[in-house]
Amino acid sequence: MPRALAAIGFDADDTLWHNERLFRMTEARFVELLSDYADPRDLPARLLEAEKRNLARYGYGVKGFTLSMIETALEVTEGRAPGYIVRAILDAGREMLAHPVRLLPGAAETLERLAGDYRLLLITKGDLFDQERKVAQSGLGEFFSAVEIVSEKTPAIYARVFTRHGEGPARAMMVGNSLKSDVLPAIEAGAWGVHAPHELTWTLERCEPPKDAPRYREIARLDELPDLAAEIG
Amino acid sequence: MPRALAAIGFDADDTLWHNERLFRMTEARFVELLSDYADPRDLPARLLEAEKRNLARYGYGVKGFTLSMIETALEVTEGRAPGYIVRAILDAGREMLAHPVRLLPGAAETLERLAGDYRLLLITKGDLFDQERKVAQSGLGEFFSAVEIVSEKTPAIYARVFTRHGEGPARAMMVGNSLKSDVLPAIEAGAWGVHAPHELTWTLERCEPPKDAPRYREIARLDELPDLAAEIG
Repeated sequence: MPRALAAIGFDADDTLWHNERLFRMTEARFVELLSDYADPRDLPARLLEAEKRNLARYGYGVKGFTLSMIETALEVTEGRAPGYIVRAILDAGREMLAHPVRLLPGAAETLERLAGDYRLLLITKGDLFDQERKVAQSGLGEFFSAVEIVSEKTPAIYARVFTRHGEGPARAMMVGNSLKSDVLPAIEAGAWGVHAPHELTWTLERCEPPKDAPRYREIARLDELPDLAAEIG
Repeated sequence: MPRALAAIGFDADDTLWHNERLFRMTEARFVELLSDYADPRDLPARLLEAEKRNLARYGYGVKGFTLSMIETALEVTEGRAPGYIVRAILDAGREMLAHPVRLLPGAAETLERLAGDYRLLLITKGDLFDQERKVAQSGLGEFFSAVEIVSEKTPAIYARVFTRHGEGPARAMMVGNSLKSDVLPAIEAGAWGVHAPHELTWTLERCEPPKDAPRYREIARLDELPDLAAEIG
């Protein structure tokens, strides 16, 4: 009898390695830079507004975030942002793109334990170029049968990826820190959806856990995954 | 006997639809915006320097180009670029990302003629998000068995794509306007490389045609492709 589970998909940012804390650190620098021009307590919300407004044009990732910071700086200074501020924002964006990848606890060990028994897939959104760099730097690339960098995480995308690289969504599991992007659409596609919460999750990725979803699970730590997968089959 | 040719890969920008002319138009706006601060004849070279410097961090695409324009504006004004200039650059970048896709002559007809006989692949680099938008808007998506948006076009990438979606590079052909990205690395991977020159090609994509390469061809128009493919087999 074939295994109930053939493929396991992993989100990358804040599931396998730290990401959101780098955005928060950069946001803190941004607030500091503009503290003479606007109430620091308002700035994160102004920046988030710009990010939301630009999402349909820029998609996800550091370059779009950098452009949204520059736009917000112009807004809050009414076009009078001094050059050194814009330059500091450009520098901060480039530093994010050069920032070393820091794995989350248990990531490498868990993938190593699972890699012999299941086909592992990395399924992430964001800047193609930057995500490829992070996969390479993470040292985790060897555990994955395929790396799929996608522009949005929809049920149709999960169905396609799990069909292309596995035995279809019904025999697949998706693991990630975002209920909205990793868990709910995977369950809607017919897969198992496993929430691995991270203490920092971007506002736009937050939502309620699913109700009456027999294929929904939550784990506190990545190293719970091998037992969970074995239980399913 | 199987066909000698199983798959045909197409570059997208300036092979199937216009792209470079939008970059040139935006560059012209950029030069105009900064004409009080620097000799307009020097500005394109200054911008190109920034693009080259940033390529390893930003990769290809409109968002990186926008960030390089802002950086160059700060440079040539010695940090005194007025807010309206930075804002105009942000606007110009966003307009590029919303610009309608204009097909090159013969693109749709040629793909339609080839689609029955060969597996057609779209292989392009650039911003994932923006390229997916352009594929959708182009109306050409239905002709392709697969769309691969890659961060670099190397022989290894061509070998992987033609193996995944075809019968390997030896039975594949790559068609594009860039000798450097579309033709030479495909030939190095063992495929046919067909150059379809475009009147505008970005400086960083230019190079000499290959010598002693029996699998190199050049066409003046896309609609020469079906005969060329039939000749190969």
